[in-house]
Amino acid sequence: MAGTMMAVMKPEAAPGAEIRDVKIPAFGDRDVLVKVRVASVCGTDLHIYNWDQWAQNRIKPPLIPGHEFCGDVAAVGREVTAVKEGDFVSAEMHVNCGKCYQCRTGDAHICQHVKIIGVDANGAFAEYVVIPESNIWKIDPSIPAEYASLYDPLGNAVHTVLSGDIAAKTVAITGCGPIGLFSIAVARACGATQVFAIEVNEHRRKIAKQMKADFVLDPTKDDVKKIVMEATDGTGVDVLLEMAGRQDAIQTGFSILRLGGRVSLLGIPSRPVTMNFAEDIIFKGATILGINGRRMYQTWYQMQALLKAGKLDLHPVITDRIPMRDFSKGMDRLKTGEASKILLYPNGVK
Amino acid sequence: MAGTMMAVMKPEAAPGAEIRDVKIPAFGDRDVLVKVRVASVCGTDLHIYNWDQWAQNRIKPPLIPGHEFCGDVAAVGREVTAVKEGDFVSAEMHVNCGKCYQCRTGDAHICQHVKIIGVDANGAFAEYVVIPESNIWKIDPSIPAEYASLYDPLGNAVHTVLSGDIAAKTVAITGCGPIGLFSIAVARACGATQVFAIEVNEHRRKIAKQMKADFVLDPTKDDVKKIVMEATDGTGVDVLLEMAGRQDAIQTGFSILRLGGRVSLLGIPSRPVTMNFAEDIIFKGATILGINGRRMYQTWYQMQALLKAGKLDLHPVITDRIPMRDFSKGMDRLKTGEASKILLYPNGVK
Amino acid sequence: MAGTMMAVMKPEAAPGAEIRDVKIPAFGDRDVLVKVRVASVCGTDLHIYNWDQWAQNRIKPPLIPGHEFCGDVAAVGREVTAVKEGDFVSAEMHVNCGKCYQCRTGDAHICQHVKIIGVDANGAFAEYVVIPESNIWKIDPSIPAEYASLYDPLGNAVHTVLSGDIAAKTVAITGCGPIGLFSIAVARACGATQVFAIEVNEHRRKIAKQMKADFVLDPTKDDVKKIVMEATDGTGVDVLLEMAGRQDAIQTGFSILRLGGRVSLLGIPSRPVTMNFAEDIIFKGATILGINGRRMYQTWYQMQALLKAGKLDLHPVITDRIPMRDFSKGMDRLKTGEASKILLYPNGVK
Amino acid sequence: MAGTMMAVMKPEAAPGAEIRDVKIPAFGDRDVLVKVRVASVCGTDLHIYNWDQWAQNRIKPPLIPGHEFCGDVAAVGREVTAVKEGDFVSAEMHVNCGKCYQCRTGDAHICQHVKIIGVDANGAFAEYVVIPESNIWKIDPSIPAEYASLYDPLGNAVHTVLSGDIAAKTVAITGCGPIGLFSIAVARACGATQVFAIEVNEHRRKIAKQMKADFVLDPTKDDVKKIVMEATDGTGVDVLLEMAGRQDAIQTGFSILRLGGRVSLLGIPSRPVTMNFAEDIIFKGATILGINGRRMYQTWYQMQALLKAGKLDLHPVITDRIPMRDFSKGMDRLKTGEASKILLYPNGVK
Repeated sequence: MAGTMMAVMKPEAAPGAEIRDVKIPAFGDRDVLVKVRVASVCGTDLHIYNWDQWAQNRIKPPLIPGHEFCGDVAAVGREVTAVKEGDFVSAEMHVNCGKCYQCRTGDAHICQHVKIIGVDANGAFAEYVVIPESNIWKIDPSIPAEYASLYDPLGNAVHTVLSGDIAAKTVAITGCGPIGLFSIAVARACGATQVFAIEVNEHRRKIAKQMKADFVLDPTKDDVKKIVMEATDGTGVDVLLEMAGRQDAIQTGFSILRLGGRVSLLGIPSRPVTMNFAEDIIFKGATILGINGRRMYQTWYQMQALLKAGKLDLHPVITDRIPMRDFSKGMDRLKTGEASKILLYPNGVK
Repeated sequence: MAGTMMAVMKPEAAPGAEIRDVKIPAFGDRDVLVKVRVASVCGTDLHIYNWDQWAQNRIKPPLIPGHEFCGDVAAVGREVTAVKEGDFVSAEMHVNCGKCYQCRTGDAHICQHVKIIGVDANGAFAEYVVIPESNIWKIDPSIPAEYASLYDPLGNAVHTVLSGDIAAKTVAITGCGPIGLFSIAVARACGATQVFAIEVNEHRRKIAKQMKADFVLDPTKDDVKKIVMEATDGTGVDVLLEMAGRQDAIQTGFSILRLGGRVSLLGIPSRPVTMNFAEDIIFKGATILGINGRRMYQTWYQMQALLKAGKLDLHPVITDRIPMRDFSKGMDRLKTGEASKILLYPNGVK
Repeated sequence: MAGTMMAVMKPEAAPGAEIRDVKIPAFGDRDVLVKVRVASVCGTDLHIYNWDQWAQNRIKPPLIPGHEFCGDVAAVGREVTAVKEGDFVSAEMHVNCGKCYQCRTGDAHICQHVKIIGVDANGAFAEYVVIPESNIWKIDPSIPAEYASLYDPLGNAVHTVLSGDIAAKTVAITGCGPIGLFSIAVARACGATQVFAIEVNEHRRKIAKQMKADFVLDPTKDDVKKIVMEATDGTGVDVLLEMAGRQDAIQTGFSILRLGGRVSLLGIPSRPVTMNFAEDIIFKGATILGINGRRMYQTWYQMQALLKAGKLDLHPVITDRIPMRDFSKGMDRLKTGEASKILLYPNGVK
Repeated sequence: MAGTMMAVMKPEAAPGAEIRDVKIPAFGDRDVLVKVRVASVCGTDLHIYNWDQWAQNRIKPPLIPGHEFCGDVAAVGREVTAVKEGDFVSAEMHVNCGKCYQCRTGDAHICQHVKIIGVDANGAFAEYVVIPESNIWKIDPSIPAEYASLYDPLGNAVHTVLSGDIAAKTVAITGCGPIGLFSIAVARACGATQVFAIEVNEHRRKIAKQMKADFVLDPTKDDVKKIVMEATDGTGVDVLLEMAGRQDAIQTGFSILRLGGRVSLLGIPSRPVTMNFAEDIIFKGATILGINGRRMYQTWYQMQALLKAGKLDLHPVITDRIPMRDFSKGMDRLKTGEASKILLYPNGVK
C-alpha cells in the first residue's frame, strides 16, 4: 500500500520517542497488513521510552514500538488464506522460528529464537502494522475493540491463571499492574473461591476492589500473613500468581503459600532474588512455574471463549483513552502510578 | 444412646419399604452418632425400593437405606477427635479399607473393598446414623442444611466436572438427573463457556434452563449434532459429561465431541454398550474417564469451597421437601419423572 | 529431477498392485525430494493391496502406497532450510493443515484435515518420494537404516506406551503385530516392571519372547486372567496397551486391568465393540485414551533419543528383507501370518 | 517384650553419641515392634551427631536416631492386621497426622504435622524399633536385606526422578551423595537417555561412573555448560535433579536446563539461595518442584516394583558395612568424604 502513516518512533538510542510520518510498511507473500484501530501500552513500552538498561541491551533504533493492538485487515500477501481484507484481528507478537525443539513440541511460546514485533521489529504504535499470517488472530465481531486491543496482556493473565488448577482454589495475586488485575477477573471466572490481591499502590488497590478481589491488601500496612492464614483456616493459599517481580512481593507470596501449593511467576525481577529454598520450596513441596508470554495458540482460544461468553469485565483496568499522537503524555501518566491500562487511538478516541 | 428412633426400613427381600420404630444404633470407639437433619433421595434408593435386579444382587435386608444427608453430632466414640457433640456434619458414605493399592496411592474412592453405608450397612433414612470418624465431614455453618444434605450427589458432579480441564471449555451434559443438573452449575462456576444440556424429559429440561445451561436440547426433537456443531464453529465440544447411562445418550455425546476431547462417564448403563471404537475413540484421540463416587477427600474440599463462596445455586434441583415418614410417597413422585431432588425431614419439613 | 523411477503402483480400483516405471515426481518450493533407501510394509498397505472395504472408501487410484521409509535427500525446494542434499531422513507422513483448533493447540496428530502420504497421495514404495519440509525428519547417522525405516510404526508404539506413566508399572499388551512387539521394547526401556504379551498367533508369540516380554500368553489356551492376577498380587495390570483391534482382545484386556488403570487403544476394530461400561470403565475408574498416529513432533524426539541411546533392540521384529520389486511376494508373506515387519529395498537388499 | 537392647543413644544436647543398653520399647495396640536387621546412615544422622545448628533447633535428647532400616516383625499390637510376627519389613518413618488438608488429599508426605521416627522419636539405630501399623511396609523376601535397608533414601530418589516425565529425556544430576547416585540408576531404569552426573568429590564421581552415568563431570575442572550443550545439540537437559543443596550447584544446574525443562529440588541448602529468576525461571518457562520425602505410598510401590524386576543395581553406593556398635567410626568415615552409604548391623555384619 503506497503512502505514509503516522507512527510513534524511537529514532535513536536515547530516552523519549517522537511522532513521525513514515512510509506504510511493505509486506511479504505470507504477511498481513493491519490498519490499527486501538493499541494499548505495556510496561515494556515505558522501558523502551525511558531507555533503561534492559532497553539499551535489547532495542535497536529506529523502532516503532507497540505490541498490543487490534485492527482491520487492510491487505494480505498472495499466499495468505487465514484472513481477508476487512477482517477484525489482533495478533500474537511473539514470532517463533517453527524449527527448534520447543516449537516442534507444542511450546512455541518459549521458542529458542523468538522475535517480538514492537521490540525486535516495527510494532503497532502506528496507523499500520505488518503481521505474519501465522500470527494473526481473527476476532469475533461481538468482542469490543477495547478488549480486543488487550489480548496480549490478557493472554498473559489467562496463561498464568490457567497454568494449573484454579477451580475451587484460593489464590493470592502479588502485584496489581494490568496483568495482575486481569488475573483477578480470570481467576474468579474460572472458579477461584477466594482471591487475595496484594499491592502497595493505592490506585491499583482501588481497581483491584472494582475487579472484585475478595481481599485487597496493602503489604506495607496489613498483616498479610495473618489475614490470609485466618481466611484459609491456617492452611495458606493454594495458588500464588506472582506479578510484581520484586523480592519483597515474592517473599510475601511464598510465606502464605500452602504446603503443596502452586506458584506461577510472571513478574520479571530486574535483579537477582534471594530465597529460602529449604523452607519455601523444598519442605513445602511447592510447584513453581515460570510463565512467559501466552501459549500459542491455546491461550488465544481460551481468551476468546471467556470473552465471548461474557465472563470477564475488564473495564475498571482501562483508565486512559488518548490519541496515539499523545503517546508521550501517556508515558507521563504511567509514571505517576495513577494510570493502569492506557489505550491509544491512531485516528481519534472513539 | 438408649431409646428408639423412626427409620425407613427394607425389612425383607421384596419391593417396598416400611416406617419402623427401631433401636438407636450402637457405635464404636472411632464412630460418630449423627442426628439426621435432612436426608435426600438418590436413584439408588429407588432401585432398592423397587427391588430390581441390581438390588436383589447387592442388598441384604433388613436394611435402612439412605446415603445422602446432613445432621448434628449426637455423640462420639472414645477415640474420636475430629468432631464433637453439636457439630454440623455430613459424611462420605463410601467406607474404604485403607490397605489396598488404591487406598494407599490416593485413590480411596475406588478402593477394592469399599462398603457403602445405606447400601451395605444401615444408612441415613432414620433419625440417627452411625459414621466412622474417618468419613465424617464437618460443615461450615454458613452452608444451608438443604445443600449440606446434597454433598454426596453434588460431589459426584464436582468430581465429574473437575476430572479434567473445564475453564474456557465447551461442555455437553447428556442426562439431566440431579447430578447432571448440578454439573451445569459446577461447570459454569468453574469457567465453562458454553453448556449444552441434553435430556429427553421435559421436567428436567425445564430445570436445566433454570440452572442456566446455554443450550437445552431434546434429542428426540432437536438436531443435536447440527446445533452443537454450529455453536462450536464446527469443532464440537471440548468435554462430554455423560450422566444418562444409556447407549443412545452415549452415542449422541460422542458424536458431538471434538477431536482430542474429554469424556467423563458417570451414568451407569444397565446393559452393555456398543460403540464405534475406531471413529469415536481412536481416530478422535479421545480421553475417556470412568468416574466413580467422589475423591476422598479432595472433592469434599472443592465442594465446600464452591458452596462457601456462593458459586452454586442448586435450588432449582430441589423439587420436593417431605417428611421422612412419607418416604413411599417420595418414591411415587420419583416414578412420575416430575421430581428431581427430594429432601426427607425426619422431624418435620423446615 | 528429470527421469523415471521404479514404483509400486495401485493403478485402478481393484485388488493387487504392479511394478511400474513412472516419472520422478516434481516438487514445490517447500518440498524435499527423497531417494528411498529402505521402506517397510504396514498392515494398511495390505488393506490397500487387498482392496477391502476400507480401501475402497478411502483410496483414489492411481496411487503409489507406502508411508514407512528412510532415505537420502536428493533435492530440495527453493525455500527449504531444514535439510540439504545428502541428509539422511525419514518423515512424518501425516500432513496436517496447520490451521484447525487441534493444529493450533499442540495436537497436530489429530488434525481435522489430515492427509496421509502413501494413502491420500503418492508414497514411499518407489525410488523417490516428495515430502513437505515441515514433515521431514533428519536422522542421526548413527541409527541404522533398518530402524530408520520403522519410525512410523515405532512412533505409534512410543506414542502409545508414553501416553501415560509407564515407569515401575505392570503392562499388558493385547495383540503382537509389529507395533505391539515394538511396544514391548519401549515399555521395558522406559521402566515397565512386568510386561504381559497376549497374542493368538504363535509366530508373533515367538517374537514377543525374543522381545523379552515377561509373560507371553495365548488367550486361546492360557487362563490369562488367572495368570495375570497371580503375578500382580490380585491387583491387575496398571496399563493396558490394546493393539489387536478386536472385541475379544479388548474384553480380555479390560478384565485384567486394575481399578484406576490406564488403557491406550491403538488397534482399530473394523466393527463396533460391545462392552460392559459399568463394570469395566465406570466402577473401575479407568482412563481410556484413543491413540492416533504419533505426536508431532514430540514422539519423534523421544524415538530418536531412545534409539541413539541404544535402548531398543528391534531386530526380532524384522522378519523379511526383500527387493521392492517383489512387493507382491511380501503381501503373500504377510497373509501367511508368519511375517512381522517386511523391509523393501528399491535398489537391492543390503 | 521384656528385656534390654543395644542402642545408639544421643543422651544430651551436645555433639556425639553413645552405645547404651536400654529397655526394649513398649508398643501400642496399633504398633509393630521390629527387630532391626540392617540400618543405614543418612546425612541427617551426621547432623545430629555433630549437633549443628539444625540439630540444636530440632532434636530433643535423649534420642535414638536412625530412620533407614529393615528388619523382622518381633511382635504386633492387638489391632494390627497388616503384618504378623516374622514378616520382613521396612517402614516409612514420616508419621503423618491423617487429618490435615494435605493428608486428606493424597499428599501425606507433606503433612502439616509430620513427626519423623529417628528425629522426633526414637529410631532404628537399635536392636528394636516401634513403628505404627499405618507406616509399616512389608518387603518381598526376594529383595536383599541390604537394599531393603535403603528404602528411605532410595524412595527419595524414586520420588525425585519420577516427579515428572523421565522416559526418553536427558537428565542432569547435581550432587552425587547416595540419593544422587541412586537417582542415576533410577533414571536409567526408567528410560532416561543421557545422564550427566555433576559432583566435586572424586570418590563420589567414581561411584557415579560405576552407576553408569553417561557423563561424570567435575564442575571445578570441566566446562559443564559446554559439554552438556554439545551433547544435547545446544538444547540443554530436559530434567535437572538438584541434590547438592548448594548455591553453586543450583546455578550450574539451571544454566544447563533447556527452555521448558523440569527441575526437581531435593538437596536442602542450609543458607538462602540467590538466583536470576528472570533468566533462569521465567523466560525459561521452567517447572520447579520442591521434593520432600517419598509419596505415601505410591513411591513405595514403585520402589518395590523396580527392585523386584531387578532394574536397579545399587551395590556401588554401599561402601561400608560395620557393626552398629561402631557407629562413631561410621561417623568418622562419613566425614572423610570417602564413604557413601554405610550399613549398620546390630547383630554382626552378614
